[in-house]
Amino acid sequence: MAFLNDNYLKLRAGYLFPEIARRVNAFCESNPEAAMRIIRCGIGDVTEPLPSTVVAALHKAVDEMASRSTFRGYGPEQGYEFLRHAIAQNDFRDKGIDIADDEIFVSDGSKCDCGNILDILGHENSIAVMDPVYPVYVDTNVMAGHTGEANEQGAYAGLVYLPCNSANGFVAEIPSQKVDLVYLCFPNNPTGTVATRAQLEAWVEYALKNDAILLYDAAYEAYISEPGIPHSIFEIPGARECAIEFRSFSKNGGFTGVRCAFTVVPKSLMARTRGGEKKPLHPLWNRRMSTKFNGVSYIVQRAAESLYSPEGKEEVAGIIAHYMGNAQILRQATGGLEVHGGVNAPYIWVKTPNGLTSWEMFDLMLQEANIVITPGSGFGSAGEGYFRISAFNSRANAEEASRRIKALIQG
Amino acid sequence: MAFLNDNYLKLRAGYLFPEIARRVNAFCESNPEAAMRIIRCGIGDVTEPLPSTVVAALHKAVDEMASRSTFRGYGPEQGYEFLRHAIAQNDFRDKGIDIADDEIFVSDGSKCDCGNILDILGHENSIAVMDPVYPVYVDTNVMAGHTGEANEQGAYAGLVYLPCNSANGFVAEIPSQKVDLVYLCFPNNPTGTVATRAQLEAWVEYALKNDAILLYDAAYEAYISEPGIPHSIFEIPGARECAIEFRSFSKNGGFTGVRCAFTVVPKSLMARTRGGEKKPLHPLWNRRMSTKFNGVSYIVQRAAESLYSPEGKEEVAGIIAHYMGNAQILRQATGGLEVHGGVNAPYIWVKTPNGLTSWEMFDLMLQEANIVITPGSGFGSAGEGYFRISAFNSRANAEEASRRIKALIQG
Repeated sequence: MAFLNDNYLKLRAGYLFPEIARRVNAFCESNPEAAMRIIRCGIGDVTEPLPSTVVAALHKAVDEMASRSTFRGYGPEQGYEFLRHAIAQNDFRDKGIDIADDEIFVSDGSKCDCGNILDILGHENSIAVMDPVYPVYVDTNVMAGHTGEANEQGAYAGLVYLPCNSANGFVAEIPSQKVDLVYLCFPNNPTGTVATRAQLEAWVEYALKNDAILLYDAAYEAYISEPGIPHSIFEIPGARECAIEFRSFSKNGGFTGVRCAFTVVPKSLMARTRGGEKKPLHPLWNRRMSTKFNGVSYIVQRAAESLYSPEGKEEVAGIIAHYMGNAQILRQATGGLEVHGGVNAPYIWVKTPNGLTSWEMFDLMLQEANIVITPGSGFGSAGEGYFRISAFNSRANAEEASRRIKALIQG
Repeated sequence: MAFLNDNYLKLRAGYLFPEIARRVNAFCESNPEAAMRIIRCGIGDVTEPLPSTVVAALHKAVDEMASRSTFRGYGPEQGYEFLRHAIAQNDFRDKGIDIADDEIFVSDGSKCDCGNILDILGHENSIAVMDPVYPVYVDTNVMAGHTGEANEQGAYAGLVYLPCNSANGFVAEIPSQKVDLVYLCFPNNPTGTVATRAQLEAWVEYALKNDAILLYDAAYEAYISEPGIPHSIFEIPGARECAIEFRSFSKNGGFTGVRCAFTVVPKSLMARTRGGEKKPLHPLWNRRMSTKFNGVSYIVQRAAESLYSPEGKEEVAGIIAHYMGNAQILRQATGGLEVHGGVNAPYIWVKTPNGLTSWEMFDLMLQEANIVITPGSGFGSAGEGYFRISAFNSRANAEEASRRIKALIQG
């Protein structure tokens, strides 16, 4: 009989966000009036419409597809040259970072890329993740058979968890042991914290010393407001030899429903065969994408390209300013509690009052304030006792949520 | 040091279509005048513009994304209910096939799905593919470590190849040995052949008897013109217990550059754990998609939905009639040679004249007729001595290609 992948059976409960949706739906069904009042500050999903530059680019691309002479069928699996170039030029070379067009791989989402990257890496690697952690890093490693079973706190045997807490400001410290792969996410989801240049330099130094690879998720880089905080791991000398970076248009262009992202794989990044030979990873990722992917919708790639026009950049800046205005309002609402993030990221990470567990806080916020937050423990055991507030909302909702949170916390 | 996935190093040469592109580019560079005359009958890519119904649906969805009240962020990873329902109702239930909405998983491509399905299956399975074969089935198994090295003919140790040839009409026969997974593709890419109901019944019987799973690729089902040929494996009783079906909007709606497809995973389909316990695969695929995918662009899903409107269906029928008209013209051009396909599929599979190898024929067609075809040997050793002509073209190109092919073969 055909075998299934047993590793899937190690996965605990549902993926976090479906579980939140389940609880919210159950609450709404039994409280139809409260349901009308619900404000969602849970899942990190944009709420504002697409920029007008993007809308115009989409319409134009649709019209191209309507005419035989401008119709496009299969595109390059790695992304169209016009988009790879716009990305490499604007996000990297214009900022003095050495990244070539063909080191950019356009995809339909960072979540996909973060999971798929394991395809080209060996099963022998020792793997470190920050705790709390974006669940996709962990779950995809469980599915790939890189872990043992989970313990009661949800930590999987075989993974190295790098604890983040109020003592280290929720930025992981360099581990004392040797690992081969390290997932880093800055600005961090879920905690909203960022790593300084010195901290990232230490990570690159560690990686080079240990021949490790940094899997650097920078999906929220557009939210960095403080000067001096690196936007890309490739700002750090040596990173081209030890890092892969994941970026997304989800949170700057508002593309969560449009679907476009990209991954940067430097041609100078090497890994070893089982026999000990060093080989570049770039051709492997190129082969992976050519074989298991067929490129992003042409229409969507034109939309992403438009974000790099002067008008597009201006509109993106407006979107970021809007959400970061919300973040400021919501961060203030938590006054008195221990709070992280919300300055260089659209997430605010807050310690629960009165020693509540994260899920107790989730239920309290849902039932008493009709606000959906994300329980910190859903991101790992080090997230227990914290909750995440997302700033993705209308200004009116952010202000109303702020009032209710203040009332709940102070009341 | 970080390990790479050694299995990638077993992959032979480039993926077929990049290799064709490389040769065509080289020819065009050294023959700029002939380059102007080139007609591409190689890669199976649509050439006609999107149906007007689809164009209207795309514009409408773009406008929805431009307004806060109708904007959509993250959608369900499995696809929007409106599309899952339209698919299950129109493609299955209206034809008397028992498939529920939530057995449909919307994706951005069948190539992705055919590769990704291995994520949820165990590494212990014995795997059979038809030969010639769509290379993605083989290469994704190589990457996953399910094979040994390739031999000189490009066949990988550990895979069971089911030879297709003129004797069996290029439809694989039921194997004598037991295998766990069988990739079937009807209408077939590359040969254009179809399986009769009796043949598919025999496959389902084999699968049920051996507890095997049929991975059934029906990306070209819309091209079936002869009555009585099944369009879906689920037309066969018992298939709900032994099959997964892959479908695509690439070749009916002309979506190769738009990107939308779907996979049907019946809830009654089981596989075994290493411990021998039977478990349904549906929750595993659901978890895989929730964790490693973020759904298809909302705009694209609305476009796919529009294909099921009365106007959309009429336009799709027009597209199919156009390409199948080409197929008839091109099939006639090969008169005198052994020919398969082109009746229920947009591919014509032709034996090379004068004992030429497939790549010799490719070069001859490129150099003498300035026509790009696909060498049969690119699809496996049983494809040696054959070539594939794609009917995806304008009528004018199909007619001109037909004249040139006739002249080359008869001259």
